[in-house]
Parts: sequence; structure tokens; C-alpha cells
Amino acid sequence: MNPTACLLIIGNEVLSGRTRDANLQFLATRLGEMGIPLREVRVIPDVVETIVGTVNEVRKKFDHVFTTGGIGPTHDDITSECVAQAFGVPWVVHEETRALMAADYARRDPPVEMNAARLRMATLPLGAVPIRCAMTTAPGFSMENVHVMAGVPRIMQSMFDALAPSLQGGVPVVSRAVHAIGVFEGNIAEGLAAIQQRYPALDIGSYPFYRQHSSGAGFLGGGVALVSKGVSLSDVEAATAEITALLVGMGASPVQGEPGA
Amino acid sequence: MNPTACLLIIGNEVLSGRTRDANLQFLATRLGEMGIPLREVRVIPDVVETIVGTVNEVRKKFDHVFTTGGIGPTHDDITSECVAQAFGVPWVVHEETRALMAADYARRDPPVEMNAARLRMATLPLGAVPIRCAMTTAPGFSMENVHVMAGVPRIMQSMFDALAPSLQGGVPVVSRAVHAIGVFEGNIAEGLAAIQQRYPALDIGSYPFYRQHSSGAGFLGGGVALVSKGVSLSDVEAATAEITALLVGMGASPVQGEPGA
Repeated sequence: MNPTACLLIIGNEVLSGRTRDANLQFLATRLGEMGIPLREVRVIPDVVETIVGTVNEVRKKFDHVFTTGGIGPTHDDITSECVAQAFGVPWVVHEETRALMAADYARRDPPVEMNAARLRMATLPLGAVPIRCAMTTAPGFSMENVHVMAGVPRIMQSMFDALAPSLQGGVPVVSRAVHAIGVFEGNIAEGLAAIQQRYPALDIGSYPFYRQHSSGAGFLGGGVALVSKGVSLSDVEAATAEITALLVGMGASPVQGEPGA
Repeated sequence: MNPTACLLIIGNEVLSGRTRDANLQFLATRLGEMGIPLREVRVIPDVVETIVGTVNEVRKKFDHVFTTGGIGPTHDDITSECVAQAFGVPWVVHEETRALMAADYARRDPPVEMNAARLRMATLPLGAVPIRCAMTTAPGFSMENVHVMAGVPRIMQSMFDALAPSLQGGVPVVSRAVHAIGVFEGNIAEGLAAIQQRYPALDIGSYPFYRQHSSGAGFLGGGVALVSKGVSLSDVEAATAEITALLVGMGASPVQGEPGA
């Protein structure tokens, strides 16, 4: 069995609609390739009880928990101290991190002050292992199976690149897609369900799509994308061949891969 | 107190990274305007036990639960029967819906067959109230405080437009943003925390931004957007004035509103 992952997106700005999350899709894709499939995502607010309670619930339920958001220097950045509280450990200045950040700030022109707000970014749950990345000396960290990263996508991605080699992956999840124009889901549902039953270890998904003129003015027609996914490449390929035959049998002209934009 | 909302995004395609969700931001914005703030979002897979368990957990915890995805005709569309199971009611053909769909299919050229797969879209938890929208005769539905909608954004939006007038709203959440170029979060954190303490009923958020040339090649510089949000417009405006004064006091040139792209 592959290890499982859960993602916590922490931040009022996503829940209010101000910010459109850009981290879910990146992490889902990368973790899938590593054989650590994402099984659940939660978006939660910057509220202490909610963060502490959610971290404690999901860290027992999943092999890995990834968090994004809430590790900056301002009052609404409370993820780090909440993780300390969840694990029941003190939240303390990490001396090596403080020194790295202070040296970085001193090198800037003009120099940046290591004030109380910035010192919070060098303060970690006792026992946490910093995640050092190329983008900033203010680190993410791993506390047991909970991996805490920034919310800003390019910093999060840099932190994940630094973290990834230390994660024990599983069997990569592979997928193959077939699409066909002018096919209605309602006409293929029965045949598709029969294929899914013959490959119970695969996830076979059916995703209708709609194409519009790039002007947005007109409708070019739609179709369906059929995706087979699993850890066995031979099963995925066999199911894909059966799906292709199903579509051909209905007079469609299926194409391997996802429909173009 | 405003009523609260939770969103369940149901679908393997979002968890795998294949599809980037486009419904969260729409619903977060619309619900905020109606005074029904979104307090949590979960993305869960097309797995019966997970859907049933999650629906039963969150429908007790929040005033409203909205779901997107999993109400089409294929084998992986299981949201509707899972909601019936969660409420402990039978999942039965809704006769009025069946008749509407059959009439719609008969009018098409060529006519569309009302087969077993399509009949599933007319099958609802006993006691559910259909959500009829302009885009399709296959409905969403409300079962008590759980509102089940399609995953395809334009259909979901049409269903939400149909549903919204029946929801009892609260006091709309208002927000004001100020942004300033060249300001580091670490320099304003202390002053900002003091303002937050003076307005405990508001959510004051600090969001750093980075601007790149549209070519992606270079870096134009960054800054911070400071957002005050709450149900009291006068508090929001007072906090915004204090934040503006804080930035001016640091030599910055704050601008009302969000930074441009």
C-alpha cells in the first residue's frame, strides 16, 4: 500500500475568495508522481483551535500531512505555534535558523533588522527539522509527519523541492486519458461501469468537457475525457484499450490524451 | 451571528491534480456577500465511506453545507446516493424530475434516450428539494441543510443562482484593502498587530505580493496588501485608516485597493 497524504491549506484569504489557491494542484501532481497520493485537502481559517484540532486529527489518519500558509512574520501567521501546541511541545527559537536569518539580513543593502516579528519565523516547535530552501532563509519545517510550508506558491515549491528527497515514496500512480468529441456521458456510462468492474484496482473517471471559441462568444461542441489511473501500468493500458474500443464501437473517433484547450 | 458554511469538493480529479478547482473562489465570494461566510472546505475522493462520513460530520457542524461534483450519469458519480445514505433515507426516482428530463431528451434532435444511467440523475434522496437551473434539466438538490450541485463550473454557478434566493443570509462581510510597494511585512508586523488588537471583531490579514514582468523574465519589486474584513463597515473603515497612517509613518505611499496584476 502506498503512503497517503493530506494537505491543509491554512488561511482566511482562501476561504474568503480573495486568493485563489495555487498550491493544491502542484502538490497533488508531485505527490502522485512520488506514489504518495493526496487523499484529502482541507482549507481552514487562521483560528488556533481549528488549526490545532485539525492537525491532530489528520496526522493520525494519514502518513503525511502537508500544510501551506501562515508562517510569515505578521499576527495572522500562527501555523507554527499551533503545530507546537498540537504536538504538546514548546515553541522555541531555533538557534541555527536564527543565526542563518540574522546573517542574511545583515548582508542586505540596506541591512534588515532582526526584530521580534522576524524572530517569530526562527521560532519552531521543539524537535522540528527545518526545511531550508533557495528562496528565503525563513524556513519551513517537518515535525514528525507534518510538513509545514509557506503559502506563497514560489516559496512553497522551493520548500517542497528541498523536502521531497527525504520523503519515502511509494509506487508512482500512472494515468492514461482518452477523449472523444460528441460523446455524451449518458451513452457510455453502462459500458464504462463494466470496464471499471473488470479493473477494481483502478480509478476510472469520466469528465465531460465543453469547448468555447476563445472569444467566449460561441460553443464549439463538447465531449468526454476518460481517465484510467492506478499503480499498475499494464492494467491502466489494458483498461485504456477497452475504453478506446467502447468509443469506437459507438462510432466515435477517440484520441489518446487529454483534449486540447 | 452569521450562519456558517462548509464546502465539500467531491472528486478524484481534483485530488490527483488533473483538474484545478474553479468553484471554491466563486462560492466563497458569493457566500461572503450574502453574509454566509465559508468556514471550511474539504476536497474528498469518490469513496462512499468518506463522502457519507464527511457529510454527516459537517452537516452538524455548519449551518449550510454545499457540495460540488459527482452528480453525473457515470459510475464515479456517487454523491447523490451517498447523501441519501448519510441521511438514512431511500434513494428513489423523483417523478417530476424524471418527467422533465424525459421531455427535454425527447425534444432533442436526434432524441436522447432516457436510459438507466440518465435515470440515476433523476434519482434523489427521499425528501430532497430539486435545484432546477437554466443549464440542464438534471437537477442539483437540497436535503435539509446540504446543497448538492454539479462540479462543472458553469452548471454549478447556474445551480447556485437558482438556490441563492432561498438561503437565509446574514450581515454581509465587507472588506477594504490597502497596498504599498516596497514595504516588508517584518517592518509593519508590530504596528499591524496593535491595530488588530484594537479591532478584535475584524480579520486583518497581511499578504505579501511579488510583481514580475509579464514576460516572466524579471522581477519588478514587491510589497504588501493589508486587508480588513468584518461585518461592521465603520470598524473596517477605521482600521483601514489606521493601517494607512501606519504605512505613511514608515515613509510608504499606500494606495487603497488591491495591487494591480
